[in-house]
Amino acid sequence: MQTVRESGDGHVGVTVGELRESGVLARILAQLGPARAASIGPGDDCAVLSSVGDVVVTTDTMIEGPDFRLAWHRGFDLGWKLAATNLSDVAAMGARPTALTVALACPKTTPVALLEEIARGIDAACRALAPGCGVVGGDLGQAPVLTAAVTALGDMEGRAPVTRAGAAPGDTVAYAGPLGLAGLGLALLFQHCSDEEGVAHAEGLPELRERHAAELAAQFAPAAPIGLGVVASEAGATAMMDVSDGLALDAARLARASGVALDLASDVLRGAFGSQQGVAVPLRAMLEGGEDHGLLATFPAGTELPAGFQVIGTVTELGSAAPAAGTAAPAAGTAAPAVGSLSVDGEPYAPGGWDPYNKLTTLGS
Amino acid sequence: MQTVRESGDGHVGVTVGELRESGVLARILAQLGPARAASIGPGDDCAVLSSVGDVVVTTDTMIEGPDFRLAWHRGFDLGWKLAATNLSDVAAMGARPTALTVALACPKTTPVALLEEIARGIDAACRALAPGCGVVGGDLGQAPVLTAAVTALGDMEGRAPVTRAGAAPGDTVAYAGPLGLAGLGLALLFQHCSDEEGVAHAEGLPELRERHAAELAAQFAPAAPIGLGVVASEAGATAMMDVSDGLALDAARLARASGVALDLASDVLRGAFGSQQGVAVPLRAMLEGGEDHGLLATFPAGTELPAGFQVIGTVTELGSAAPAAGTAAPAAGTAAPAVGSLSVDGEPYAPGGWDPYNKLTTLGS
Repeated sequence: MQTVRESGDGHVGVTVGELRESGVLARILAQLGPARAASIGPGDDCAVLSSVGDVVVTTDTMIEGPDFRLAWHRGFDLGWKLAATNLSDVAAMGARPTALTVALACPKTTPVALLEEIARGIDAACRALAPGCGVVGGDLGQAPVLTAAVTALGDMEGRAPVTRAGAAPGDTVAYAGPLGLAGLGLALLFQHCSDEEGVAHAEGLPELRERHAAELAAQFAPAAPIGLGVVASEAGATAMMDVSDGLALDAARLARASGVALDLASDVLRGAFGSQQGVAVPLRAMLEGGEDHGLLATFPAGTELPAGFQVIGTVTELGSAAPAAGTAAPAAGTAAPAVGSLSVDGEPYAPGGWDPYNKLTTLGS
Repeated sequence: MQTVRESGDGHVGVTVGELRESGVLARILAQLGPARAASIGPGDDCAVLSSVGDVVVTTDTMIEGPDFRLAWHRGFDLGWKLAATNLSDVAAMGARPTALTVALACPKTTPVALLEEIARGIDAACRALAPGCGVVGGDLGQAPVLTAAVTALGDMEGRAPVTRAGAAPGDTVAYAGPLGLAGLGLALLFQHCSDEEGVAHAEGLPELRERHAAELAAQFAPAAPIGLGVVASEAGATAMMDVSDGLALDAARLARASGVALDLASDVLRGAFGSQQGVAVPLRAMLEGGEDHGLLATFPAGTELPAGFQVIGTVTELGSAAPAAGTAAPAAGTAAPAVGSLSVDGEPYAPGGWDPYNKLTTLGS
């Protein structure tokens, strides 16, 4: 007989193997509110949604082990994060999120209560971050570890999508949302709640949650600024993306997609994000810490930025290094910025890598 | 060091852990054709699709172990089945499939060639079964076993969705597609290519593929009649669903959703499906064998059924047992059919169960 698994909540009780699929489903569905655009929700072969404009769609999977650890994560937080990471991709197109589908797979020994908590977290994130959006369908299955695949849909409502490819030289680079906090949270978890082989444990977690509430909240249940996606689009954003793998890496991706170079200003970053919710955030965490799910956007110079966005840099001309205000001009002989290149204060900056098969697990500050 | 995994294709070579994410992605994307409705495909935060009518969405996950075995399944077939099972749910609403998203997660030791084969199978199924539909986005991750989550979208194109809930007493019950072959294929695999503990092996598989080509093809790469979904809707189908868990169980679900009872006629089933592609298919396999992904639909009495659909029974009046033509009337004292009940030749039929956490692995004939 297998042991009953426990989540960070300490859930035990009836397992998915003991309750049949219909029973598990009923308990999950009871946690979920409706989606405003859905004329048909869960229960048929497909859900049916109305859409005013073009439809956007994105998908993201979270798997126990590489993506989360049950020793650290509560079911509610897992659900919240699953929703937030996908809603954030919808927001980044300038779309309004309309619906999620959720495929959950887990061992037979998983407590049904853990799946209920995940559903509760997904629903709460929809209500808080993207009112009107809800779960319209899903799938239950068996897997060796807890596996959750979420797909999010959104409605362009007649607006043109804001892609990564529209940034033009001279544009202002702006960011909305927390920056670096989630990465600091992950680093703290590895530092205090894992053994020398990186295996997660919950010892000391309650104290850590107390001492570093902001960093852990940002890591566990990111308050992604979903509503600002539509706002940025309406304010004329020329390019936008969700920052999930770290500002530097994602900024370089946006630069590459747009065929431009980006220069970030460290003094401006420090001024705007050096202290968040009482936490001192070092520049390296801002640039390299992932999973904040804020919005990186570019706007034409002179645009009055929507509330929530902060200027953090400039889209630079290719072939002419354009140092940020207050920094020294690059030394003579410095190569002109290449397409897709990123600089900080006019100095080339090589972002740390991110790879799902070779994940970074610590974030030096 | 972990051993390099092999699929049924015997793929080895470079693994996903050796190639970085961008390299794996590039090789996968090279296998995929475009989706007609997509103005933005893979590469941005979301894909963007046009839709003439309401949007339908469904999701389904396949996980190595419970859902497939690499000893048996070729990458191409896995991809085909992933696409077919989801496209079939879209078809069952009377919608035209427009796009898939695909989230793949696997161990670092997985050969990139296996993921390429999966992508090739997905693309081939789209071209063959739902021309114009294609993969518009996805996600790559790490998992202890190969894990694939597919979401399919479709366009109602102005038609009303055909749900499971519209069947009315007197309607004709019809079915399109292979019936029972896929279940026979699975039973053969367990019988000949697994040890006494049910662990899959490939010994004898080439011979089995030769001797039982039809059953194995139906199991590995179902030829789901996707195009008939729109056709059935246009012909006036009152209810429709994809048959994935066995005709009897799914027919009972349709009956329950519609608030009616269904009676199937064994002589008609035997006549229409008793011999398929040269294979003798017993009634029990037709009723209980899953994974055929045919379409079960009801039509008003007297409807000229679209080519591909076969009459298999009748929607019966509640409170009046209505035996199929040619069978004896139920004995006096037989209870009237209850909502959601299924009968065969007027006799109550209790479908075998299906549960993702307690799967049936054999199919007695």
